[in-house]
Amino acid sequence: MGIMRIGHVSLRVMDMAAAVKHYENVLGMKKTMEDEQGNVYLKCWDEWDKYSLILTPSDRAGLNYVAYKTEHDIDLDAFQKRIEAYGIATKMLPEGTLQSTGRMLQFMLPSGHEMRLFAMKECVGTEVGSSNPDPWPDNLKGVGVKWLDHLALVCELNPEAGVNRVAENVKFLKECLDFYLSEQIVVGPGGAIQAAAFMFRATKPHDIAFLPGPKAGLHHISFFLDSWHDILKAGDIMAKNKVKIDLAPTRHGITRGETIYFFDPSGNRNETFAGLGYLAQPDRPVNTWSEENMWRGIFYHTGEAYPAFSEVYT
Amino acid sequence: MGIMRIGHVSLRVMDMAAAVKHYENVLGMKKTMEDEQGNVYLKCWDEWDKYSLILTPSDRAGLNYVAYKTEHDIDLDAFQKRIEAYGIATKMLPEGTLQSTGRMLQFMLPSGHEMRLFAMKECVGTEVGSSNPDPWPDNLKGVGVKWLDHLALVCELNPEAGVNRVAENVKFLKECLDFYLSEQIVVGPGGAIQAAAFMFRATKPHDIAFLPGPKAGLHHISFFLDSWHDILKAGDIMAKNKVKIDLAPTRHGITRGETIYFFDPSGNRNETFAGLGYLAQPDRPVNTWSEENMWRGIFYHTGEAYPAFSEVYT
Amino acid sequence: MGIMRIGHVSLRVMDMAAAVKHYENVLGMKKTMEDEQGNVYLKCWDEWDKYSLILTPSDRAGLNYVAYKTEHDIDLDAFQKRIEAYGIATKMLPEGTLQSTGRMLQFMLPSGHEMRLFAMKECVGTEVGSSNPDPWPDNLKGVGVKWLDHLALVCELNPEAGVNRVAENVKFLKECLDFYLSEQIVVGPGGAIQAAAFMFRATKPHDIAFLPGPKAGLHHISFFLDSWHDILKAGDIMAKNKVKIDLAPTRHGITRGETIYFFDPSGNRNETFAGLGYLAQPDRPVNTWSEENMWRGIFYHTGEAYPAFSEVYT
Amino acid sequence: MGIMRIGHVSLRVMDMAAAVKHYENVLGMKKTMEDEQGNVYLKCWDEWDKYSLILTPSDRAGLNYVAYKTEHDIDLDAFQKRIEAYGIATKMLPEGTLQSTGRMLQFMLPSGHEMRLFAMKECVGTEVGSSNPDPWPDNLKGVGVKWLDHLALVCELNPEAGVNRVAENVKFLKECLDFYLSEQIVVGPGGAIQAAAFMFRATKPHDIAFLPGPKAGLHHISFFLDSWHDILKAGDIMAKNKVKIDLAPTRHGITRGETIYFFDPSGNRNETFAGLGYLAQPDRPVNTWSEENMWRGIFYHTGEAYPAFSEVYT
Repeated sequence: MGIMRIGHVSLRVMDMAAAVKHYENVLGMKKTMEDEQGNVYLKCWDEWDKYSLILTPSDRAGLNYVAYKTEHDIDLDAFQKRIEAYGIATKMLPEGTLQSTGRMLQFMLPSGHEMRLFAMKECVGTEVGSSNPDPWPDNLKGVGVKWLDHLALVCELNPEAGVNRVAENVKFLKECLDFYLSEQIVVGPGGAIQAAAFMFRATKPHDIAFLPGPKAGLHHISFFLDSWHDILKAGDIMAKNKVKIDLAPTRHGITRGETIYFFDPSGNRNETFAGLGYLAQPDRPVNTWSEENMWRGIFYHTGEAYPAFSEVYT
Repeated sequence: MGIMRIGHVSLRVMDMAAAVKHYENVLGMKKTMEDEQGNVYLKCWDEWDKYSLILTPSDRAGLNYVAYKTEHDIDLDAFQKRIEAYGIATKMLPEGTLQSTGRMLQFMLPSGHEMRLFAMKECVGTEVGSSNPDPWPDNLKGVGVKWLDHLALVCELNPEAGVNRVAENVKFLKECLDFYLSEQIVVGPGGAIQAAAFMFRATKPHDIAFLPGPKAGLHHISFFLDSWHDILKAGDIMAKNKVKIDLAPTRHGITRGETIYFFDPSGNRNETFAGLGYLAQPDRPVNTWSEENMWRGIFYHTGEAYPAFSEVYT
Repeated sequence: MGIMRIGHVSLRVMDMAAAVKHYENVLGMKKTMEDEQGNVYLKCWDEWDKYSLILTPSDRAGLNYVAYKTEHDIDLDAFQKRIEAYGIATKMLPEGTLQSTGRMLQFMLPSGHEMRLFAMKECVGTEVGSSNPDPWPDNLKGVGVKWLDHLALVCELNPEAGVNRVAENVKFLKECLDFYLSEQIVVGPGGAIQAAAFMFRATKPHDIAFLPGPKAGLHHISFFLDSWHDILKAGDIMAKNKVKIDLAPTRHGITRGETIYFFDPSGNRNETFAGLGYLAQPDRPVNTWSEENMWRGIFYHTGEAYPAFSEVYT
Repeated sequence: MGIMRIGHVSLRVMDMAAAVKHYENVLGMKKTMEDEQGNVYLKCWDEWDKYSLILTPSDRAGLNYVAYKTEHDIDLDAFQKRIEAYGIATKMLPEGTLQSTGRMLQFMLPSGHEMRLFAMKECVGTEVGSSNPDPWPDNLKGVGVKWLDHLALVCELNPEAGVNRVAENVKFLKECLDFYLSEQIVVGPGGAIQAAAFMFRATKPHDIAFLPGPKAGLHHISFFLDSWHDILKAGDIMAKNKVKIDLAPTRHGITRGETIYFFDPSGNRNETFAGLGYLAQPDRPVNTWSEENMWRGIFYHTGEAYPAFSEVYT
């Protein structure tokens, strides 16, 4: 099967106590591990691997790297060959580089973001277990997000200079990592410029997204919820916790997902994203959004430009 | 990728006009084709291939066969070799055997049900199209099911006679078709007997299910809806149309799905099934339900035996 | 305004510890008081008066009485005159008969059920308070019902003997207590027999219901939830707590409400009831359900008779 | 009972065809009447009286008047006496002033808005009827709003000049019309200034609201929907119809309602409002919002000031 899903994100935060409080009390994740460097590892209740988020103490916010999980350890060797053949350098980090985690294949996306692939992580089970499991656990805190679902990377787009890291990432993920394209925004004369792209491995609308910007960064990390009702409750809980909300509940045109964007205390944008939307499949026609419908694609209800959405990121 | 998803089901119906009315007016499918033998082809609004349901006039209800779609045409040759090597006879039906459909690899499951694999079917697009698509189309009829999601086959289970077609199917789908097991019910001393199984290819809780019974048959075909709210509306629409409901809205323990079971006018059981439930993955621990929790697994709320659910099928 | 709403229900339970656990852990009420006779008083989180449920230790289940609250204390005197003039004896129980409660006007309905009216009860506020209140409180337990919404009384109906306590109650509540009829089931030749009735004072479909049976009893007490989503969660929580469910989630035709019926450990039927349904108003045409549509009115989805619903009560 | 509910709103629109299209296709109302002056009358599907909205052709947007319905015709005489005794002039418009409508008591609120009371309007029934009614009708168009729920008037507030029309309206509605206060916003030193107020007659959070502004106007008219899910669908339908949305789906702190604000083609603000929120009652403690929590009260999720909400009205 190759790559199965997003495995974890390593994120920089400026105030660890505030960050842990945010991810635990607001999102409902649980701290599962801490290492000697002071990194804190957390997981969502419906994840079975030991962690999906690593918080690193730092003096600025942002993404260290994102890691995707492959089905078999041997997949890593195959991917290494393909990536190197594509002309991108790789490094195999040995098992134990991260606690409870197998070896990791490390490389840079064309956009300059670090990605890692790994096949093994300690399986601790979901919070409902796998023996006659309840549909959800008791004693959930806060929003109770189910899993880390995807992330969105800001990639340099500068058509005048002939730079389109969005398109370069798409090509690389398609050719080397077997990702499929589900949706795209095209701009410019004849829609010739692929300005944003949404790609999947699991059969849901996206496992990764590339958005355009002046320089590489992290746009948001996104957590899954079941339904629009959970989005309302999530908004309520953010209000109770005085979380800085970027955009109140709405529908995406792209992915059909229901969403709230908000920020962690360091300014890293989070999303709660609900609904399957549609069954993503290799043969599903790719959705294409034109420049004039771009904002309808992003915020379906109002369809209006919200510049801060493009301009603010870490 | 191999097999991607369920492609279509060929179903026998005794009153074609009543059947078409049911699948169109109640479920909201659309008739897309009809052939010279009087077979009627229908699709759901969010499917892009030309049909997912073939209704065949007959004097009794039941399943003719189920077809799954592979990513590439060449996959069919590879599967043929593996299936033959497993000791099961296959037949490659030439392109055009079915209108708008490529060649089909035909074989019998260990349980005696006919399965087909195919890679090509005319793509007609979803009803919202793929250019700046709305999240749902106008003028939906009835329930407005999104897609044919899975089916459940009744397989002979007779432990005294040493017959367990459920387990044989699981072994075959795992070894030859690369399906993964998501959940199972185990019964008997030490839970030694795999009495029901749920398997997936797309990363949702199931694409096929095997339930036990005295003889092979069709338990139900299932259509996807987004949410519990859609389940309520579906129940309302069934009521308005005087559809025979088998079981009013409830939650499954198995798959976490929200459901209504009901019957088409010929007595074929249908299901509207809502929610992603969880992200099915090859490395997700398999959920196992014990004999004493079996009914909780099926109808989570009451947890009570509902014998007609096991006994009535086509 | 006269009568405003249901104030409290006094219920007999056979195992007080089990009962308190049920109403606290499953329904999410809170114990607010206990008296010397061992009666336990509970309230829901969105109620501001001190209690809405009194549990009385007994050797059998059932209803002691139901109390409705009037706007002004002086209303009690006016109601006493009207009721006495109607030919029904009353008794004014002095303030302090119940802790934290003003004087109560006590009388028997034509059906033989005891009813009380009162105007004063200690106001303790809702759990969110009234100063910049959140929409719902933290640390809800279980289902988190919002308020005691209504109750349904079984009234003797024996047309052969010329006995119809349903109709007698309707007449009395209309003429003496200013209740309005929202819906009714009529049976028999020409629909001449009013077999069930639903009446309101607050502008929601019902504050009290009368159902027919061989002898007087309590059919159910009902608690309010916001939405169909809360009904799903309520069902999940009942499953986790192994509550005996009478009827899984469904829609009522009558009132349009969404519902689960279940039992407390003593066998008193409870309901979680969701949604406003419609705005009940004095001038809204009364909904009338015919004998052949009676079950559709009760359980809208299946429309099928469920005899235990009529036959089992306390 | 006195006043039961809002009866209708008379609204000025600048392009009648566009307005009718908006209220019919987007909101799902139906045109039921038209008069010689070119006024168009519409009703919602769950209303039984002949109309709840009158559109008047004009060269500017805004409110002509709002009419509330009393239970009995004789109530009008009683209200006339009370209002005149309060020092406000009234006029009894004879039956037939409006088609299908009885006599109307006309007067000006202290805020300068015209209000009318009436007791009789032709009853045409809801679209589901009252004989074995379905919970909702077939062939709904657009959002399918259930009823006109309330309106919000902008009232002059100028503390420096000693002008507070909000408070004057509250006093008048309480003393003369028997409205109850459910919630208020208080500002200034010691919260001495009642800057906004929410009042009810039906037992839901509000039938009328008063918001502060530099001069009298209409803030919005609001239509009822059942649930948060309907709010999502409403937003989708507005998007499909390119309706100008003021504020995407969110929760009110005040009333707990779920909401979208948007504009009709003339610029009159509309609201779709969902949920009962709480049972409004004469003895429920009044919710009070302080100046620093005012925006949290209005838009609970973000809690942020949205000046256009106060500044833009007709």
